[in-house]
Amino acid sequence: MSEQAGSQRPHVGFIGLGRMGRPMVDNLLAAGFQVTVHNRTRERCEPFAARGARIADTPADVARDADVTITMVADGPAAEAVYVGPDGVLAGLGPGGLVLEMSTIGPELARSLAERAAERGAQLLDAPVSGSIPAARAAQLVVMVGGDAAAVERARPVLAALSREQHHMGPAGTGAAMKLAVNALIGVTNLALSEVLVAAERSGIARAQALDVLADSAIGSPYITYKREAFLDPDAVEVFFTVRLMKKDMRLAVDLGRSTDVPMLSVALADEALTLAAASGYGEDDVVRMADVLRARAEALEASR
Amino acid sequence: MSEQAGSQRPHVGFIGLGRMGRPMVDNLLAAGFQVTVHNRTRERCEPFAARGARIADTPADVARDADVTITMVADGPAAEAVYVGPDGVLAGLGPGGLVLEMSTIGPELARSLAERAAERGAQLLDAPVSGSIPAARAAQLVVMVGGDAAAVERARPVLAALSREQHHMGPAGTGAAMKLAVNALIGVTNLALSEVLVAAERSGIARAQALDVLADSAIGSPYITYKREAFLDPDAVEVFFTVRLMKKDMRLAVDLGRSTDVPMLSVALADEALTLAAASGYGEDDVVRMADVLRARAEALEASR
Amino acid sequence: MSEQAGSQRPHVGFIGLGRMGRPMVDNLLAAGFQVTVHNRTRERCEPFAARGARIADTPADVARDADVTITMVADGPAAEAVYVGPDGVLAGLGPGGLVLEMSTIGPELARSLAERAAERGAQLLDAPVSGSIPAARAAQLVVMVGGDAAAVERARPVLAALSREQHHMGPAGTGAAMKLAVNALIGVTNLALSEVLVAAERSGIARAQALDVLADSAIGSPYITYKREAFLDPDAVEVFFTVRLMKKDMRLAVDLGRSTDVPMLSVALADEALTLAAASGYGEDDVVRMADVLRARAEALEASR
Amino acid sequence: MSEQAGSQRPHVGFIGLGRMGRPMVDNLLAAGFQVTVHNRTRERCEPFAARGARIADTPADVARDADVTITMVADGPAAEAVYVGPDGVLAGLGPGGLVLEMSTIGPELARSLAERAAERGAQLLDAPVSGSIPAARAAQLVVMVGGDAAAVERARPVLAALSREQHHMGPAGTGAAMKLAVNALIGVTNLALSEVLVAAERSGIARAQALDVLADSAIGSPYITYKREAFLDPDAVEVFFTVRLMKKDMRLAVDLGRSTDVPMLSVALADEALTLAAASGYGEDDVVRMADVLRARAEALEASR
Repeated sequence: MSEQAGSQRPHVGFIGLGRMGRPMVDNLLAAGFQVTVHNRTRERCEPFAARGARIADTPADVARDADVTITMVADGPAAEAVYVGPDGVLAGLGPGGLVLEMSTIGPELARSLAERAAERGAQLLDAPVSGSIPAARAAQLVVMVGGDAAAVERARPVLAALSREQHHMGPAGTGAAMKLAVNALIGVTNLALSEVLVAAERSGIARAQALDVLADSAIGSPYITYKREAFLDPDAVEVFFTVRLMKKDMRLAVDLGRSTDVPMLSVALADEALTLAAASGYGEDDVVRMADVLRARAEALEASR
Repeated sequence: MSEQAGSQRPHVGFIGLGRMGRPMVDNLLAAGFQVTVHNRTRERCEPFAARGARIADTPADVARDADVTITMVADGPAAEAVYVGPDGVLAGLGPGGLVLEMSTIGPELARSLAERAAERGAQLLDAPVSGSIPAARAAQLVVMVGGDAAAVERARPVLAALSREQHHMGPAGTGAAMKLAVNALIGVTNLALSEVLVAAERSGIARAQALDVLADSAIGSPYITYKREAFLDPDAVEVFFTVRLMKKDMRLAVDLGRSTDVPMLSVALADEALTLAAASGYGEDDVVRMADVLRARAEALEASR
Repeated sequence: MSEQAGSQRPHVGFIGLGRMGRPMVDNLLAAGFQVTVHNRTRERCEPFAARGARIADTPADVARDADVTITMVADGPAAEAVYVGPDGVLAGLGPGGLVLEMSTIGPELARSLAERAAERGAQLLDAPVSGSIPAARAAQLVVMVGGDAAAVERARPVLAALSREQHHMGPAGTGAAMKLAVNALIGVTNLALSEVLVAAERSGIARAQALDVLADSAIGSPYITYKREAFLDPDAVEVFFTVRLMKKDMRLAVDLGRSTDVPMLSVALADEALTLAAASGYGEDDVVRMADVLRARAEALEASR
Repeated sequence: MSEQAGSQRPHVGFIGLGRMGRPMVDNLLAAGFQVTVHNRTRERCEPFAARGARIADTPADVARDADVTITMVADGPAAEAVYVGPDGVLAGLGPGGLVLEMSTIGPELARSLAERAAERGAQLLDAPVSGSIPAARAAQLVVMVGGDAAAVERARPVLAALSREQHHMGPAGTGAAMKLAVNALIGVTNLALSEVLVAAERSGIARAQALDVLADSAIGSPYITYKREAFLDPDAVEVFFTVRLMKKDMRLAVDLGRSTDVPMLSVALADEALTLAAASGYGEDDVVRMADVLRARAEALEASR
C-alpha cells in the first residue's frame, strides 16, 4: 500500500477496462487520483499508462499497490476469476485494504467476497452502479453500496469522482441486491413497454407518439426517454444494453427471488422473453429489439390465418 | 341543443358522477361552463344543482340539452347502458352533436359508439384520461383522444378545463387503445415493483430506501413517487386505484393484444397476479397490496420448511 | 317429423359434413338409419345421396324432416350460423324434436341453444365427442352429454351407432364443459411432452426411446401412443389435430376458467405456446410440431452464444 | 469385495433406508441376495439385520463389502454427502466395483459421480426409478439406466429383483435425465388435471365422474387412476408424493432445460404452482392438494365480488 498523508488522495487500483471501466478510469484520472490499472488483455491498459497510470501485471499486484481497489468485470464468474488464486485480488490484500466490487454480481457472492477480504484484515464493499455508458462518461452513475458504514465513508471520495449519488443500502450484499432490483424493474418494463408499443402501433397509433404520451404519463421514466430513439430506429443508435446482458441480470434477480422465497413472476417472464429474443438472433443487439420480436410474431400470426 | 353564439362557451352535459366524474364537473363549473348533469342515482346530482347545474332525468335528455356531452362511467357495460335504448345518449343526439366518451373502454366499443353517433349526424370521440383522483381535482389529467381532428379542436376548450394535456392519437379507438397501453404499463410495473421491493426487503434493505433509490434511477417514474407512502403503509392512505379496477384494465389490454395479434405476456401475468390479490381479499384495496400478497407468500413458504 | 313406430329406428338429420361428420354419417347409414344430410356446400352431400340419404336445402329443413337432428360444425360461430335465422335449425324444430349438438362449443352457448330449443317445445343436448378421425371412422368415439336424462336415453341408440361410450355428465352445458376439460388436458400434455422430449433428446436420449419409456410409465396415456409416429416424423403421418384447432379449444377452456373463477394457469400457457407455433408457420400442421418449435429455439439459443 | 462364484448371486450393498429404500431391501432379501445395509440413523437397519442383512457403519464400508452398491437417498445434496469424504462410497470403491445410484438427482451430478467412480477403476450407473411406494413394494418399479452397456447387463439381475422393467437410455446421465422427463410430465399433468377438475366441478360435473371420463379418454393414464381416490378425498389416503418432493423434481427439470437450452415453459409453471401450494401450507401433503389450492382461490375470488 502506498503511503497516504492526511490530505492526500488515496491511490486507486482499477481492474477491468471494459466499456464501463474505461470511462470510469478517465474520470478518476481527471479527478487527480493516482491510478494503477489491470486488464486481462494488457493492450487496453496502455492508453491509460500514457496518461500517467501505472500498469500492474496481476490483480494481486493492483491490490498491493493501491489504497482502494476497484473491480469492474463482466459477471460473477469473471469476478471469481479476478479475486481468487495466487494472482487474485484477495492474495494481494493486506490489513487496512479497501476493495470496491462494482460489477453486477449476486448478493451471495458479494457476501462471500466480503468475508474472505475480512479474513485478511481488509474490507470489501459491494458497490454496483446504475446507469449506462453515457452516465459512466459523465460521472453521473448512481452507486448502491453494501457493507460497513465507516468503509463507505472512506470510499466516498473515490466514488464521488465516478457518480452523482452514493446510496448506502445496508450490510454486505445489499448493494448487489439493490442493483438487481433496479435492473429487474428495467427488464420487466422493457418487455411491457415493447408489448404496449406494438399493440398501440397495430391499433393505428404512431410509435413516436405512443412513446411521447407514455413519457408524459405517470409511468414515464428516464428509461423511456433514453430509449426513445432506439425504439424508433434500432439501427440508428449505439447499443448500450444488450439482450444477453439484460438476460444475465434477470437470471440473477430470479435467483435472488429463490433465495428470499419471493416469487419473481414478472422477472422470470422477462428472462424467458429475452431468451426468445436471443434465440431470434438478437443476443448482441439492444434490448429494444424485444419490440421487433413481438411485432414479427404478430405479423406471422396474422399471416397464418 | 342550446343556441351557441360565436364567443359563447358551449353548454356541457356530464353523465356519470363517480369518484372521477364529480371533481371533473367541479372544474367545468369553476371554468364557467353551463353544465347539465345526470347520474343513475339522482342524489349525486343535487350538490351540483345547488351550484347552478341543471339535472337531466335521462342520458338522452342530457344529449338533447348540451352542445358537448361527456360520459364518464365505470366500464364498457356501463357505457353501453348509458348509450343505448330509448333513454340513451344516442337517442338524444342530433346532427352537429359532439360526445366525449371519457370512460376506460375497449377500442372496439369506442369505434362502434362513434359509428352509431355518426349515423345520427353527430360525432363521438373516445377521450379517456390518465391520472388518478388528485389529478382530476387539480384539472391536471392527461386526455388521449381518438377521432376526427376537427372534432378534437372543437372539444379542446372543454377538455382544457379538465386536463393539462390533450393528445390526439389518431382515428376513432386510438384514444381508448392508448389509455389501455398506459394502464397496462402501470399494471405490470406495479407487479414488478412489488416483487423487487419484497425481495430487497428480505435481503435486508429497508423498503423506504429501496423506493428512494428506484425513484432516483433510470426507471424512476412519477408512479413510484405517488405510491411511496402507500407502499410504506397501505392503511394510512386513501385508496386511489383498486385491485378490481386495475384488473379490469388488464383484461381490456389483454383483449387489445388478442385483437392485434400481439402477445401481451407481461400484461396477462399482471392480470393473473391481480386475480390472486383479489382472491386474497384485496379486491377493493389499493394495488400496492400486491406487495403484501407476495410477502405473505414468501413468509408462508419460509415457514413451510 | 317423420312418423315413428315403436320398433322403428328414428330418422336422423345430420348437418355438417366435415372431416368428422362424413365418417359419422357413414356409420349411421351402416347402422340402418334413414338419414337426411345438409352441408353449407352441397357437393359434399352427394356421395351420401347415392347411398340413400336425402339432401335438405337448409338446416331448418333437416330439423323438420328428422326425429333426431345432429349438428357437427367447426366452432361456436359456425354453430350459431346453423341454428339461428329463418333457415336455421331452431326455425325448423317443432314440439318433441330432439337435437344433438356435437360440435366443440362453450358451455354458455350450449345452454343458450338448449333454452331456445325448449322455447319451441323441443330438446337439445350438448353431446361433443372425444376421439379423432380414426375413432370417428371406427364408431369408437366417446360422447359426453349434457342435458335432460330422458332425452339422453332417447338419443342413446343414435349415439351408440357412432361411439363406444356415452357419458351423461349432468345438466345442459356439462357435456360441452367436459369436452373442454379433456381437450385442455390434451393440450397441456402436448406442450409438456414436447418440452421433455426435446430436453431428453438434447441430453443424449433418442426420441423414440424416450417415447417408449413415457408410454410405459405412470403418465403413459393412449395420446402418447397415438402420437408416437408423428413425434418421430411429422411429415410421414396424416394431420389429425392442427395447431389452429387445438388453440381454439384452449381459448374456450380459458374462457371456461374465467366463467368459473378457476385459474387455468397451464391451459393459458399452452394457448400461448400454440400461438407461438402458429406464428412460426405451423397453424395448419399437427400439434406435434410444438416439439419442432422448442427444438428450433434451443438450437438458435445455442448458436447465439 | 466378497468372492463371487459364477453361479453365485452378487453381494448387494444398500445405502438409504427411507420410504422407497426399505421395501427395495425387502425385495432383495426375498430374492435371496446377501445384503449389507447402511442408513444415517442406524435404528432403521436393525429390522433387516434380524432377517440376515449385515449392518455397515459407513457408506465406504458398504462399498468395500459389496459387489454391487445401491444408493437411494433424498436428493442431490444427500447423494453428495453419501459419496464424498473419507467415509463416502467413493472412498470404499475399488477396481471392478459397481454402483447403482438410484436417487433422483440431476444428470450433471450423475455424470460427475460416474467420472469419480471411474477414477477408482469402478463403474457407476445412474439408475433412478419410476413408480411410487406401492410399486417399490411389489418390485414393479421401472428403472431408467444411464452408463456403460456391459455394466447395465451386470446390474440387471439385481435390478430385476426390484423392478418390472430396466430401460438402458444411453451414456452416463441419461437415466437421470429420463427420470426428470417422466416426473416433469407428471408434475405438469397434476397441475392441468387439478385445473380441469375444479373447472368441471364448478360447471356442475361431479369430480368422480370427471375423473372417470378422463381416465377413459385419450389422455387417460395410470396416474389418473392411481390418484382417483386421493383427488376425491385427500384425507382418506396415504400420502405417496408430497408437494415438496414434486417441487424438487420440477426444479431439477427446469435446470435440465437451462443446461440444454430448452424452454421448460409448462414445467417452470408447475414449479411455481407447487410453490404456491407449499406456501398455502401443503408442503408435506400429497400433490393432489393442488386442486384444493385452485378451488380455494376460485371460491375466494367469487366471494370478493
